[in-house]
Amino acid sequence: VAVVVGVVGAGQLARMMAQAAIPLGVRLRVLARDEHESAAQVAPEVVVGSPDDLDALRRLAEGVDVVTFDHELVEPDFVRALEAEGVVVRPGAEVIATVVDKRRQREALARLHAPQPLHEPLDSFAQLEGFAAAHGWPVVLKAARGGYDGRGVWVAEDAVAAQLVWDGAVESGVALLVEEHVPIDVEVAVVVARRPGGQTVVYPAVQTVQVEGMLHELVFPPPVAGPIGERAEELARSIAHGIGAVGVLAVELFVSGDRLLVNELAARPHNSGHASIEGNVASQFENHLRAVLDWPLGDTAPAAPAFALVNVVGPADGSDPAVRLPSALSVPGLHPHLYGKAAKPGRKLGHVTAVGDDVAGLLARVRRGAALLHGEGEDWA
Amino acid sequence: VAVVVGVVGAGQLARMMAQAAIPLGVRLRVLARDEHESAAQVAPEVVVGSPDDLDALRRLAEGVDVVTFDHELVEPDFVRALEAEGVVVRPGAEVIATVVDKRRQREALARLHAPQPLHEPLDSFAQLEGFAAAHGWPVVLKAARGGYDGRGVWVAEDAVAAQLVWDGAVESGVALLVEEHVPIDVEVAVVVARRPGGQTVVYPAVQTVQVEGMLHELVFPPPVAGPIGERAEELARSIAHGIGAVGVLAVELFVSGDRLLVNELAARPHNSGHASIEGNVASQFENHLRAVLDWPLGDTAPAAPAFALVNVVGPADGSDPAVRLPSALSVPGLHPHLYGKAAKPGRKLGHVTAVGDDVAGLLARVRRGAALLHGEGEDWA
Repeated sequence: VAVVVGVVGAGQLARMMAQAAIPLGVRLRVLARDEHESAAQVAPEVVVGSPDDLDALRRLAEGVDVVTFDHELVEPDFVRALEAEGVVVRPGAEVIATVVDKRRQREALARLHAPQPLHEPLDSFAQLEGFAAAHGWPVVLKAARGGYDGRGVWVAEDAVAAQLVWDGAVESGVALLVEEHVPIDVEVAVVVARRPGGQTVVYPAVQTVQVEGMLHELVFPPPVAGPIGERAEELARSIAHGIGAVGVLAVELFVSGDRLLVNELAARPHNSGHASIEGNVASQFENHLRAVLDWPLGDTAPAAPAFALVNVVGPADGSDPAVRLPSALSVPGLHPHLYGKAAKPGRKLGHVTAVGDDVAGLLARVRRGAALLHGEGEDWA
Repeated sequence: VAVVVGVVGAGQLARMMAQAAIPLGVRLRVLARDEHESAAQVAPEVVVGSPDDLDALRRLAEGVDVVTFDHELVEPDFVRALEAEGVVVRPGAEVIATVVDKRRQREALARLHAPQPLHEPLDSFAQLEGFAAAHGWPVVLKAARGGYDGRGVWVAEDAVAAQLVWDGAVESGVALLVEEHVPIDVEVAVVVARRPGGQTVVYPAVQTVQVEGMLHELVFPPPVAGPIGERAEELARSIAHGIGAVGVLAVELFVSGDRLLVNELAARPHNSGHASIEGNVASQFENHLRAVLDWPLGDTAPAAPAFALVNVVGPADGSDPAVRLPSALSVPGLHPHLYGKAAKPGRKLGHVTAVGDDVAGLLARVRRGAALLHGEGEDWA
């Protein structure tokens, strides 16, 4: 009888879990909105339904060894209901409730004395103005959950800009928090995998480069002094313990001068860990499955001295990068990952990775691969 | 619209193709005898039917970009029929016809002047005795296709033993060929991937260790002088060109003193290439898909200085190694691959790989991992 893992959601994270599940002999069942979703195309079992529907969650959970997540967009109360019915859910409702809401993330980080930007949950626009008066413009505004107009983070340069964000959030019923605008030297991310009993493995810190709030590139090793990477890794480990994470926890951090500040948490595999498929001995997807199944965790050591990754997003002309895959495959050593998602301008559709000795050369290679997928430039000579 | 590859057969090779297909955005459809077969458990599309049934092959082929193979146990005439109906089949009927029959393999190798053991297709027992009189006992007897009593290769020490094999073969309607018994120093294997237009990539030679005619262990680099490995790689490349291989071709060779002799060919991914999933930049499964789709081929360079692999076979007590996976995962850096097949004593059920710097240490590690899966020994301390 095969071990079965149920996944709430069927995006690219669940798709890459499906890939990792095959060699482990683990059977993956995904909860998909429809059969065309990224992971629904490749998972051995698909339950069609919404994560907002407790009955759909129950159908997903029936007979599985453990339920886990592709995304946090699930009601913590539904997770509690499943747990009350005897379903093993990892991470559990308390962790989900903490990470699903950015205000709760900040509260949890504060309790753990984790360094983070100055911040306040907002009850009024006057409070926002008071925060800016105390700490200066610009400020960062974040939706506590989700967002509106397709965004969840805004940088407001002044009170006029802030008022626009505030009004839009009020209109959309979205709660905001305000944060100081930290001058960022480098962004780094650390992925951790933790078992229920506490065994934890930590991936070496990587540098992430964001464009318009979305991960664009990733390199290892990060261009920061060794101690900063080690501090980030220790911090991520202690946060995982502190919030009782089970499975993968991703911690995104800002390096600002000597300061290392936690930006955000995700209690699931994360874009900043995608290069682990080729770049580390055991990938974040394999370790997520091993962790939620309470199996011994895999080696997080780098598989090579360096690696680089670029995300593939839908080009402005609406064309599908997948049709240009053969062209991109002419780039030596390129590892393409296509998510099988319908192409839309700006939508995350895949990523490319390269692994080797020299970060600069690898970065040139993955940029070339992504450019070819995006329909820019000629074949690699 | 996704690219679709149809695979005749649904064993572990098709299963590992399914794993490789996910990041390429390729949709895999397998022809399985039932829905429980190894690859049928994980492939996005399953056609249930027999490779001996032309209609089943047609159902597999409907709407796919290319049809390829998990095994050679298909009638070349059926492949010709599909080709005549306009289906793209890679490798094509001529290659299948060559490799499916060990006599035809030997004839093709002779035409290509590839070094091989002395051999003769047998029409009579007297001819067998004549061969032994000329070249000495023992001799190796091989079934041209398939075999009987679960075997296809026999070493006959003398005429009495040979008569038993001969009688059994006659009774089972199996044609035999006889070969000289070569004193083997080392067995090596080379995997090649070739596109229809001739672009070819060659994996570095590995050492294989066979036990009772089945691959047991595999290590890279092989313990042979550099020139022997290079000769094996050149030989494999020229055989691939010579027979017009498309997709992966595996060439198994004997090293006997200064002689390098071709033992056998397989026109598909092969056990001797399984370590390429972690041990080489692009795996044989990825390159098989890329080759049959006529896409640029991936880098075959080793991803590390060394790797080792041990097969996992069903233990004598009939127990399923999969239930002991958590124990085996305690071995650091172990990459398990379970095929999801029902456990039977002696049946190939999986393999484990480790990648790193030091062959001896890696071999100890994979042996330990396999032993734990086999139910031997304690947890790795």
